Amino acid sequence: MALMAGMRVQARALLRAWLPGAALGRTESAVSGGVGVRRFGSQRVLVEPDPAAGIAVMKFKNPPVNSLSLEFLTEFVISLEKLENDKTFRGVILTSDRPGVFSAGLDLREMCGRNPAHCAEYWKAVQELWLRLYLSNLVVIAAVNGSSPAGGCLIALTCDYRVLADNPKYLMGLNETLLGIVAPFWFKDTLVNTIGHRAAERALQLGLLFPPAEALQVGMVDKVVPEDQVQSTALSVMAQWLAIPDHARQLTKNMMRKATVDRLVKERDSDIKNFVSFISRDSIQKYLQMYLEKLKQKKG
Amino acid sequence: MALMAGMRVQARALLRAWLPGAALGRTESAVSGGVGVRRFGSQRVLVEPDPAAGIAVMKFKNPPVNSLSLEFLTEFVISLEKLENDKTFRGVILTSDRPGVFSAGLDLREMCGRNPAHCAEYWKAVQELWLRLYLSNLVVIAAVNGSSPAGGCLIALTCDYRVLADNPKYLMGLNETLLGIVAPFWFKDTLVNTIGHRAAERALQLGLLFPPAEALQVGMVDKVVPEDQVQSTALSVMAQWLAIPDHARQLTKNMMRKATVDRLVKERDSDIKNFVSFISRDSIQKYLQMYLEKLKQKKG
Amino acid sequence: MALMAGMRVQARALLRAWLPGAALGRTESAVSGGVGVRRFGSQRVLVEPDPAAGIAVMKFKNPPVNSLSLEFLTEFVISLEKLENDKTFRGVILTSDRPGVFSAGLDLREMCGRNPAHCAEYWKAVQELWLRLYLSNLVVIAAVNGSSPAGGCLIALTCDYRVLADNPKYLMGLNETLLGIVAPFWFKDTLVNTIGHRAAERALQLGLLFPPAEALQVGMVDKVVPEDQVQSTALSVMAQWLAIPDHARQLTKNMMRKATVDRLVKERDSDIKNFVSFISRDSIQKYLQMYLEKLKQKKG
Repeated sequence: MALMAGMRVQARALLRAWLPGAALGRTESAVSGGVGVRRFGSQRVLVEPDPAAGIAVMKFKNPPVNSLSLEFLTEFVISLEKLENDKTFRGVILTSDRPGVFSAGLDLREMCGRNPAHCAEYWKAVQELWLRLYLSNLVVIAAVNGSSPAGGCLIALTCDYRVLADNPKYLMGLNETLLGIVAPFWFKDTLVNTIGHRAAERALQLGLLFPPAEALQVGMVDKVVPEDQVQSTALSVMAQWLAIPDHARQLTKNMMRKATVDRLVKERDSDIKNFVSFISRDSIQKYLQMYLEKLKQKKG
Repeated sequence: MALMAGMRVQARALLRAWLPGAALGRTESAVSGGVGVRRFGSQRVLVEPDPAAGIAVMKFKNPPVNSLSLEFLTEFVISLEKLENDKTFRGVILTSDRPGVFSAGLDLREMCGRNPAHCAEYWKAVQELWLRLYLSNLVVIAAVNGSSPAGGCLIALTCDYRVLADNPKYLMGLNETLLGIVAPFWFKDTLVNTIGHRAAERALQLGLLFPPAEALQVGMVDKVVPEDQVQSTALSVMAQWLAIPDHARQLTKNMMRKATVDRLVKERDSDIKNFVSFISRDSIQKYLQMYLEKLKQKKG
Repeated sequence: MALMAGMRVQARALLRAWLPGAALGRTESAVSGGVGVRRFGSQRVLVEPDPAAGIAVMKFKNPPVNSLSLEFLTEFVISLEKLENDKTFRGVILTSDRPGVFSAGLDLREMCGRNPAHCAEYWKAVQELWLRLYLSNLVVIAAVNGSSPAGGCLIALTCDYRVLADNPKYLMGLNETLLGIVAPFWFKDTLVNTIGHRAAERALQLGLLFPPAEALQVGMVDKVVPEDQVQSTALSVMAQWLAIPDHARQLTKNMMRKATVDRLVKERDSDIKNFVSFISRDSIQKYLQMYLEKLKQKKG
């Protein structure tokens, strides 16, 4: 159940990062990347394969803040599926193509002024990404090279290991309450599995966004390294995980996470229904419109 | 199930604090409190409202050790209900009117020489307080300015945040086993939710009472501050919690705690039955009488 | 479900300790032990009773690496049962008769070239030990004076308290994935109860074997002391636990652990069936034969 609530919105500065198209005001420029690397994937999710190593790097490239639009989610899942179905690949590293924002989370534009069918389709795509990532047979490592609020944090939390760049501006957390929203129960379950019940209770209620040192201390990430070592650290961590026989590791991962995934699988339809019913309320729609409008003005 | 057991009673010094009317031997003197503060509430639970701030301070005043007598519990729940039903109030701080003892926990006199109906009524009142506090819509912060063994600790654990005075005499913990008693399962669940399974397993079996530094380390409290800063710290923590939209925070709290509450709701009658059946045993009644007698002599 | 998987076997050095008859190449020499101590127990599990103190020390003596053979398991359970049924004893300390290896875990020879009935009997015995130890009415303390991989770690995890010798060679952990095996769900549950979900997820997938400092930090043991103080520390910890009335402590232990035990009790037959079906596969049998052969050659 994602429920929007009181209109007292706090910490506006932080919220800007949450809303796509608002935070950085960048427009897409050139595609970054090394020379001679075969690439595949879509426009929004760059996949840089390293077949010899059995891994690939997936770079989020949905400017300006890698918001989880329906198109992004769809391309993400397709790219992930391709890697999973290709025996060449045993692991994937998730990172942002543009350091500064790992992902700003859900895309409010997919919920504002859209019909119920679209909202349902959107929410199903959000669920789908989580379901696939959380139980992926691949070793999935997050190389978090930017802020990761809300849905961006969720993506990092689904990974097997999280490396975060030591930049105090890179905040991480499920900050839904700051916007008057409640994180869905499976966001909550994922957080509890990662940092425990008490820390999750406090972090979720206060919508805490943790800077790197605190994220490490609370257990939200596994390692904090200088910004220019995020990628290399992710690679060496990957090597450690790939040293384990795949089948045993996959079954163990499944044993640890299946019960959590099953809860959403069982409640999937009612979770969609709840989301659509909530988001369709007049008060919520007005709020979203007002909010998006305000951000456009700020940009302009 | 609260079950009393072997009669080998340990750590008598600690137990004294557990039994109301024994520990401090103080008699009630004057009502403390600031000048010009409108107060309401009952005789045993002073409520100091600050309508402008949207909060109230509830001060336990059930001398000598704030034991949870039936009257105290009843007044506590009524005061809490009043605050919850008054839109003016969004948060409440729980503290002791007399520093030294936050609350010594359950009142043995409610169980000794009483008929089953009274014991059942008493236990229902203990359940009621926990049920209401643990899911209260208010932000509930514990300003723990004294020892909080057993039921006193439980009250602190139900809060959203715990500030403890840095006084090595202020011990905190579910020390039931020291008296040959077993904490009810919902005491246990509350502790596990706070400090995790392993720490709870050890603390509960050994009946550990933690001094402030250890309480902080194990996660039983969130902050330890000098004794004269407990109140001010509680207030500034409250401000942080009130910065969050109420509705989102309340729904999030509910999402985190409802499953735990539902377990007692489902087992409430059998939990009462177990308690009454246990407490009515001849051996237990003799033990309680002997114990209360011994404490009276010490006082005399 | 214990499932063997990919044949890519890692970290051979560590594996040697896992397989009985391989690691140390020692042959049994003399029975260690103090003078004048009445002993009972079996050939493989020495029981040194101290009736005055109400405790006994159980020393694993199944050379060379205290592997959990069917005979060892049977003798272990019988010795434990004897102590539990003798009101003289309130606590037991588990340790190795030969420092260096606490226990190397399951005995592969009980699974290799054996008929299904034998494998079923063996697995039932492994379950039985865990079921009895994890809910034992005795205070059970592990004095871990050697390495404890896989099943050896499990035994330590079932105890009420773990003291580990501060020797960097004494590694501890559920390293099943290193061999392409998956720890059964009840091994997993025991670990999660001890170190929490996230740490267990990482430790189990990577098959981590922790040296003492890390074992302490992650919460896998409660205390690390110099090697010559393991026994004395275990004794003083025991005194602390025995200060608690037995009945209250036992009921509390039961309350903390019963749900975990019930899961296996409910799934016991299917867990055996899964194990036998897995272990009977041709590919697994070939792998075990090859593995045992290789180790014999190394010894020769």
